[in-house]
Amino acid sequence: MRATILSVGTEILMGQITNTNTVYLSGALNSMGIDVMYHYTVGDNPERLAEIIRMAFGDCDLVITTGGLGPTQDDMTKEIACQVMDDELVMHPEILESIRERMTGFRIKEMTPNNMKQAEMPSRAVIFRNSCGTAPGFALENREGTKAIACMPGPPGEMKTMFEKSVAPWLASKSEGVIFFRELRCFGIGESELETRLLPLINGQTDPTIATYAKESECSVRVASKRKTSEEAEAAVEEMTGKVCDIVGEYVYSKDNEELPLVVVKRLKEKGLTIASAESCTGGMFASAVTDIPGASEVFHAGYVTYSNEAKMRDLGVKKETLEKHGAVSRETALEMAEGVRKRSGSDIGISVTGVAGPGESEAKPAGLAYIGFSYGDKLLCREIKRRMNDRGRNRKYSVMSMFDMVLRNI
Amino acid sequence: MRATILSVGTEILMGQITNTNTVYLSGALNSMGIDVMYHYTVGDNPERLAEIIRMAFGDCDLVITTGGLGPTQDDMTKEIACQVMDDELVMHPEILESIRERMTGFRIKEMTPNNMKQAEMPSRAVIFRNSCGTAPGFALENREGTKAIACMPGPPGEMKTMFEKSVAPWLASKSEGVIFFRELRCFGIGESELETRLLPLINGQTDPTIATYAKESECSVRVASKRKTSEEAEAAVEEMTGKVCDIVGEYVYSKDNEELPLVVVKRLKEKGLTIASAESCTGGMFASAVTDIPGASEVFHAGYVTYSNEAKMRDLGVKKETLEKHGAVSRETALEMAEGVRKRSGSDIGISVTGVAGPGESEAKPAGLAYIGFSYGDKLLCREIKRRMNDRGRNRKYSVMSMFDMVLRNI
Repeated sequence: MRATILSVGTEILMGQITNTNTVYLSGALNSMGIDVMYHYTVGDNPERLAEIIRMAFGDCDLVITTGGLGPTQDDMTKEIACQVMDDELVMHPEILESIRERMTGFRIKEMTPNNMKQAEMPSRAVIFRNSCGTAPGFALENREGTKAIACMPGPPGEMKTMFEKSVAPWLASKSEGVIFFRELRCFGIGESELETRLLPLINGQTDPTIATYAKESECSVRVASKRKTSEEAEAAVEEMTGKVCDIVGEYVYSKDNEELPLVVVKRLKEKGLTIASAESCTGGMFASAVTDIPGASEVFHAGYVTYSNEAKMRDLGVKKETLEKHGAVSRETALEMAEGVRKRSGSDIGISVTGVAGPGESEAKPAGLAYIGFSYGDKLLCREIKRRMNDRGRNRKYSVMSMFDMVLRNI
Repeated sequence: MRATILSVGTEILMGQITNTNTVYLSGALNSMGIDVMYHYTVGDNPERLAEIIRMAFGDCDLVITTGGLGPTQDDMTKEIACQVMDDELVMHPEILESIRERMTGFRIKEMTPNNMKQAEMPSRAVIFRNSCGTAPGFALENREGTKAIACMPGPPGEMKTMFEKSVAPWLASKSEGVIFFRELRCFGIGESELETRLLPLINGQTDPTIATYAKESECSVRVASKRKTSEEAEAAVEEMTGKVCDIVGEYVYSKDNEELPLVVVKRLKEKGLTIASAESCTGGMFASAVTDIPGASEVFHAGYVTYSNEAKMRDLGVKKETLEKHGAVSRETALEMAEGVRKRSGSDIGISVTGVAGPGESEAKPAGLAYIGFSYGDKLLCREIKRRMNDRGRNRKYSVMSMFDMVLRNI
């Protein structure tokens, strides 16, 4: 199946919002074996909207739209979909009833004609319930059954839920076979190296497919299979995942597409361990990534942002001689920070970082240089990072990822 | 002028990267008075790329592309632009020389035919230098001079710099009149309230135009004018900015579209003040926002993430009785945290936060409740935040913004 993703809304063309729906839908459709050919964005203009849907059908069998399903005059995706697919809107009493119930929940008494408009749907449409908002979505085929349009609301939360609960199953029912996939997340290996090592598996492989993706500071491998039954697809993916892990398993931190901080917090909980952080160049990013996870208080009680040398000495007990002899950005300082924060906080593990994020740097201490310290029981370890990149944001992010990686590998 | 923004790259259609170029260019073009009619994304396919550029010119005078200018076989934007605009590629020795210099800097000795391809440009093109990467950009008009295409590299850093330094001035030279605009950033007022208050100015206003935008946790007002000379445009914008500030000035923290943390760090530097933070629910986000700014070490020496009650007592000197009597999420605790962190760190200012981010909450302490403490000289202040929203990420972000706002208003 060949698809176009069409975003509707003048606010996107004005640059007021970043279109995150498209990247989500592209990934989801590709992993279902649907080829995404184009992304289009068009404003709230009926002629241009109709024209662009017709154009998309020139090349594709499927158009997925987001936006333009609300109650206001601007919202016209439904009307235009009807026009292009040769159908007409009819009132659906059960949708009207559910909108009425929802509004009563919000203590809104009167229903305006605008709200009633949301209960109108194309007569031949398959309706998708909106469990996070008011406007339902729908899928509509042309009379020949050769082309289909699926329309969803624009707000990302509503769209994603509707896609997962209703649109994905509807698409699966239209295609033969069942898709199963795994996303393996990796840290510590670059995408080109990852691909090179996996080439013997990738080459000549049609099912399961293996694809590598680069993300900021990390990369991932997607293993997907399309078979007659979900059992067959899952078995094929599991077997190939095993082969992938035989080659690059040491870099894989999640087989379920989970973020590294979440994986680490879960592991700490399982082991009943607590951790405390001492950060210099990352300035609190490690602590905020940990505490972004609900329930982090079980494993994390305290973190220190010791930006100045005075703070490193006062709060972590780093020795003055160490700072004078080796400098703040050094193996020795990182180790004293890790040991100091573990003791001071009474946590099982102390993790530390000191480095040069940039833009300021020197020949001896270039931007991208950082040291991660780790203290746990008898273990006292340090990792040196040399990135040769003068990009403050990226260097900070990479240091934080390295801290989590260091914890995961040593508990 | 009517424009289409065209993103080129199969990786976007695969959902591997979020397209952030489009939102940036949309905002920038709109503020220059150029109407953005469509966003298109197409893969690395020569026929489809040519077809979509031709289609865009059906409706628009200007096509702005990003991506497909690199050295590999996939990269074909230059060739296709030539084909559509009826031009041919010629070798530019001065570009070749600059690529050679750049490669020598990276200690790469041999230049492959691929690299040389990057020095070929359409014969009639205006060349845009790439100060952050290898591939230059260019603008090319058709022979009639009625249509123009401007092509830039895909990596956002290279693209933005090239747009600001070269493409924006080129566009300005092609349009009659000069645009000047200001973006006023506001905190503490919602977009609908902001728009309602400014309606008397917005209504019936054609130049300068006034538009409001909602962003996460904040909103902004864009005042733009297009006049014959830059002096006239600037004067008109300044006059209208004054009127806007007469109405909502108390919420405006920047008239130059600067982020709140940057504004606060600059202000602290100007006043020669230092600050230390004590964070509970935000878990280090305030500290990491401060230290994200190069040179933050002048004003920020230390921050504490006191997630547990023990850490609040040990590191900040919060009293046990206070925690027992009023709870960790209370006015009293926030005040003791702010005072404690100021004293402990020896900084001029102590700022603190304690709150319920969610998802866990109780009737007495619902998600979205937070207290910001502020201690500076004789000033000891507390602000209560009630958001009634169970969204951990947004509540944390809003608390951090409130901390910066609290500092800005009280120094």
